[in-house]
Amino acid sequence: MHLVALEQVRKIKANMEGAEGVYKQIPISKADGTPVFSFRVFTIECGGHTPWHSHPFEHLNYIIEGNGAVVTEDGEHELKKGDFVLMLPGETHQYRNTSVSCPMVMICAVPKEYE
Amino acid sequence: MHLVALEQVRKIKANMEGAEGVYKQIPISKADGTPVFSFRVFTIECGGHTPWHSHPFEHLNYIIEGNGAVVTEDGEHELKKGDFVLMLPGETHQYRNTSVSCPMVMICAVPKEYE
Repeated sequence: MHLVALEQVRKIKANMEGAEGVYKQIPISKADGTPVFSFRVFTIECGGHTPWHSHPFEHLNYIIEGNGAVVTEDGEHELKKGDFVLMLPGETHQYRNTSVSCPMVMICAVPKEYE
Repeated sequence: MHLVALEQVRKIKANMEGAEGVYKQIPISKADGTPVFSFRVFTIECGGHTPWHSHPFEHLNYIIEGNGAVVTEDGEHELKKGDFVLMLPGETHQYRNTSVSCPMVMICAVPKEYE
């Protein structure tokens, strides 16, 4: 068993091209022996956003705190604490903190190969 | 994309043998087209618990709300909001709500075949 509190996990600035004001933690990682999936946590500052991009694997999200939006080809969809999102492989998407109450914090689970 | 708020998801009493005061929701399910993993949410009432059991797949947990404990062969480990747990395949375990502030609510992600 691996048990960790979010505040104990190292937080680094995400250096993905197209990301602004995004910080990353990996509370459940391949380094912890996870067999298939990893749990990452992204903290997005006010006005920050992830890249507008797609990739061949899915995202499973849970909004821990804050407000924002997920943008897809269909438009912008509001996100709030308690929401869950499944983004399928190949869907172009972007997460945005559109709020004035900051930050937005969310779980973003992915196959461990892509953590 | 599939987007849902937790309160929109049907909640049923978990009828696993050995479970007491446990309710289950599946905000990200194989019915939503998840490729590999499902996100379930368990709500455990005061004094409630999941079975003391093991199985051939892992759990990835996040404590959304409340306090309790996860019991393993090593003993009882305190859980609180913001904690993450990786329970490996074959590890015997039980989640307990040991608090007086109820309920304890947690994500329990598993391979979709076992949702």
